Amino acid sequence: VPSFTLKEIAERVGGRLVGDPGRRLAAVRPLDAAGPQDLSFLANPRYRDEALASRAGALLLRDPDRIDGRDQVLVDHPYTALAAAMTLFHPEARPAPGISERAVVAPDATLGRQVSIGPLAVVGAKAMVGDGAVIMAGVVLGDEVTVGAGSVLHPGVVVYARSIIGARVTLHAGVVVGSDGFGFGEESGGRAKIPQIGIVRIEDDVEIGANTTIDRATFGETVIARGSRLDNLVQVGHNVHIGEGSVLVAQSGIAGSTRLGRSVVVAGQSGVAGHLTVGDGAIVGAKSAVLADLPAGAFVVGHPAIPHRDWKRAQAAWRRLPDLLRTVRRLEALLETAAPAPAATPRRSGPVRRGTRRRARKA
Amino acid sequence: VPSFTLKEIAERVGGRLVGDPGRRLAAVRPLDAAGPQDLSFLANPRYRDEALASRAGALLLRDPDRIDGRDQVLVDHPYTALAAAMTLFHPEARPAPGISERAVVAPDATLGRQVSIGPLAVVGAKAMVGDGAVIMAGVVLGDEVTVGAGSVLHPGVVVYARSIIGARVTLHAGVVVGSDGFGFGEESGGRAKIPQIGIVRIEDDVEIGANTTIDRATFGETVIARGSRLDNLVQVGHNVHIGEGSVLVAQSGIAGSTRLGRSVVVAGQSGVAGHLTVGDGAIVGAKSAVLADLPAGAFVVGHPAIPHRDWKRAQAAWRRLPDLLRTVRRLEALLETAAPAPAATPRRSGPVRRGTRRRARKA
Amino acid sequence: VPSFTLKEIAERVGGRLVGDPGRRLAAVRPLDAAGPQDLSFLANPRYRDEALASRAGALLLRDPDRIDGRDQVLVDHPYTALAAAMTLFHPEARPAPGISERAVVAPDATLGRQVSIGPLAVVGAKAMVGDGAVIMAGVVLGDEVTVGAGSVLHPGVVVYARSIIGARVTLHAGVVVGSDGFGFGEESGGRAKIPQIGIVRIEDDVEIGANTTIDRATFGETVIARGSRLDNLVQVGHNVHIGEGSVLVAQSGIAGSTRLGRSVVVAGQSGVAGHLTVGDGAIVGAKSAVLADLPAGAFVVGHPAIPHRDWKRAQAAWRRLPDLLRTVRRLEALLETAAPAPAATPRRSGPVRRGTRRRARKA
Repeated sequence: VPSFTLKEIAERVGGRLVGDPGRRLAAVRPLDAAGPQDLSFLANPRYRDEALASRAGALLLRDPDRIDGRDQVLVDHPYTALAAAMTLFHPEARPAPGISERAVVAPDATLGRQVSIGPLAVVGAKAMVGDGAVIMAGVVLGDEVTVGAGSVLHPGVVVYARSIIGARVTLHAGVVVGSDGFGFGEESGGRAKIPQIGIVRIEDDVEIGANTTIDRATFGETVIARGSRLDNLVQVGHNVHIGEGSVLVAQSGIAGSTRLGRSVVVAGQSGVAGHLTVGDGAIVGAKSAVLADLPAGAFVVGHPAIPHRDWKRAQAAWRRLPDLLRTVRRLEALLETAAPAPAATPRRSGPVRRGTRRRARKA
Repeated sequence: VPSFTLKEIAERVGGRLVGDPGRRLAAVRPLDAAGPQDLSFLANPRYRDEALASRAGALLLRDPDRIDGRDQVLVDHPYTALAAAMTLFHPEARPAPGISERAVVAPDATLGRQVSIGPLAVVGAKAMVGDGAVIMAGVVLGDEVTVGAGSVLHPGVVVYARSIIGARVTLHAGVVVGSDGFGFGEESGGRAKIPQIGIVRIEDDVEIGANTTIDRATFGETVIARGSRLDNLVQVGHNVHIGEGSVLVAQSGIAGSTRLGRSVVVAGQSGVAGHLTVGDGAIVGAKSAVLADLPAGAFVVGHPAIPHRDWKRAQAAWRRLPDLLRTVRRLEALLETAAPAPAATPRRSGPVRRGTRRRARKA
Repeated sequence: VPSFTLKEIAERVGGRLVGDPGRRLAAVRPLDAAGPQDLSFLANPRYRDEALASRAGALLLRDPDRIDGRDQVLVDHPYTALAAAMTLFHPEARPAPGISERAVVAPDATLGRQVSIGPLAVVGAKAMVGDGAVIMAGVVLGDEVTVGAGSVLHPGVVVYARSIIGARVTLHAGVVVGSDGFGFGEESGGRAKIPQIGIVRIEDDVEIGANTTIDRATFGETVIARGSRLDNLVQVGHNVHIGEGSVLVAQSGIAGSTRLGRSVVVAGQSGVAGHLTVGDGAIVGAKSAVLADLPAGAFVVGHPAIPHRDWKRAQAAWRRLPDLLRTVRRLEALLETAAPAPAATPRRSGPVRRGTRRRARKA
């Protein structure tokens, strides 16, 4: 097991060392699990009490959160520093470059330098794999697929022909890129399957979770823009455009031709209907159904999704509906006792009563 | 790049040519992207303005939608014609027939004529693959599986033993056919796993989207009837029967033993509970939960799913619930001021009203 | 086709034979499909009429449900007995032990006795596969993965490095174990991807459905405890703990760091938010969203999930919202007419009021 001094760690994460530069640390662990040999971290001030109680040998934290008397490294961005420290202790295990003899690589495919192609992977005709990319066991790249430099495709990924995958992209196991969109036209004669002649383009620095599916465009491109993160089991329909830095949480789905702006967040199990536009920075709460365009910065939830505040109020009122029904019935009874007087005419029967009957009959 | 004359296109799509038969076209593009070298189409009259503005060299459309002065081909079914035209320009790239030396084919499997078996595919014992079928890289067909003529199984599809797949079926990447149903019996002694000895039968002309899962029957068959289309990430439980020409949109799920009639549509992220019957032509709106049988032609939505019109009205009222609560509180206050008469005591003000106010303030 | 005498069946299932011990039976079939050659079963007394009408040659049932005059086997647990009988007639087709020449097994992997490794499977460096385990075609086991004795991994399963899988576990096709959790930290400088250095541990006797995904922990372990059953297309986030004997139905999802107790049931298409605790035996109804901790034994449904009884009452009231709105509007109108006069009017009682009462009683 490798170990590092606090000084080495501070240098690696670009932070300011407070305490013993020679203290040796052997792992990164969360506050409650860390012991004297471990580095831990405080990224969210909410956990300050746990940090105070932690037995960690040293801490990564922001200057305003510093804890007197502890060995620590002060940083501006504790998550970024944490990531850097974790990579120091637990370097990512990339397979060594090389082409497995057990892979099937088309003779006219183009492979960059330091590429790794795992056993039983298939690289199609005229496919291009960029420098340092890792194509793991059992991946299938269709003809003319492009994979950018440094990207990692985990086992079982399938990329349909002509798809374009950028640099430093991670596709987790079982991801399908470029499957046929659900494109058919309904007309009097029945349902016609429209050939899907477009492609999928995944830009740089995108990460896509296990078993997620991304359909190619009918015409043109389905696009997942730079820096977006899709979780597991997400569905992206044909001709969808996901803006830069957006986040789609597990089991969410975006229907065909919808455009999401930059930094949109769609929480778990939510869906956005087709042919819509969602503005930059909009947030869709969990298990919601967006059925109309959303302006930038919107925060919606529910089915149909409405502004979060409205939803919370309506939802709270909804729980009190049975009480409300009872109250209204009581008021009705009271009023129908009290109210006959309104017009001076002493009508015994009349509109009110007939109304009551009519309603009763209809119900 | 191949190009075709308008006359060739009209013949191919079986339409009536209006304009210059010799005009050469090189691609099919949507109205807004098409230029003078491109064929475009108007299938939905809603887009007539875009058609008028389009720079497309020629158009496919219905006779009532014809546009004077344009080169065009008049057809009865523009989507069908579009599909035919697209296939002319962009013929489907089927792999050449042949059995990859890198596939693993059981010696007692039966392969039809002109079959394509890709590298690293596995064909189990006594499996049968029909004429012209395409089994792509990495597909696994279990023992005694049948695949009908002309079907296409994309990479990574897994078909469990004894499943039956019809002719001209398309299974997209990662589809699983024939996995164990979620079958167990709860009884006093605990939970008993029931062996799943049935199969899945997929009829002709079915298309199934990426990573969709279809469980085999406990006894008998799970059936996906002719012409149905399942989108990506759909779940079909054991012993389900999907009627002809039905459509299950992405991330929808059908629980065990439920029967869907013909031409049923289940929209995205919706579910149908187990042991139900859904009538022909029923439509389930997006993100809905069907918890009871549905008659033919029903159009339902919500959780539980209710008739669409009722849902819309209730949902609209729901948004106004906070207002309604306020109104009722006001009426209550008014009435408790106004109504004191029922009991003979003339309480005008007093604890009741103040209580009401206090409650209102707190809410 | 093998056949068995009723005596042999009674011995196999450990039941008491009533009737002809020599009667030969050739298959197990459900009540409505069984004929004189078939064994059938009555596990749920609700189906007694079908049992009476069944043409089955013999029945498995509980003593209190016995049917005079039929050949039958009386058992305490009919589902367990059914499973045993089905296994007699339809023994599970396990592939013969042996390592396919077409598999790729790391030289330093450890394989137990009677292991089966299918064609085109990959077993990573230092992986361990227990006695009698079955690794089917196209499975990929990462480095240092452990698979316990007797487990069965169906085609296309991917297990990331260092994951631990117990004994007698079944992973259906396309399952992904150990993918990266959706772990990133939001901070002023942007979004930092946190390396996921934990693992997944799946305990003994777990069954996991097709294309389900289980993320590994950021630190520590994501755990699926003994005897749990996950259906198809389920998502389990990083650091989740699923208690013993729990059931997650298709397309449900559990967000990061949430802990489920023992014997929890999460019905189809439901989700549980992150960092929550769900008590033993809690039941989450279908298509629900759990947004807060749940006590043991809770039965909740809806979005947000609330006690089932409250949900049913509120949901029933919700459908009557449009009527309620109308009633309140009418009351408002009446009251605003009536109210100025509060006291003075000499109210007559009579039919109106009785009508109201009748309606109230009926409701």
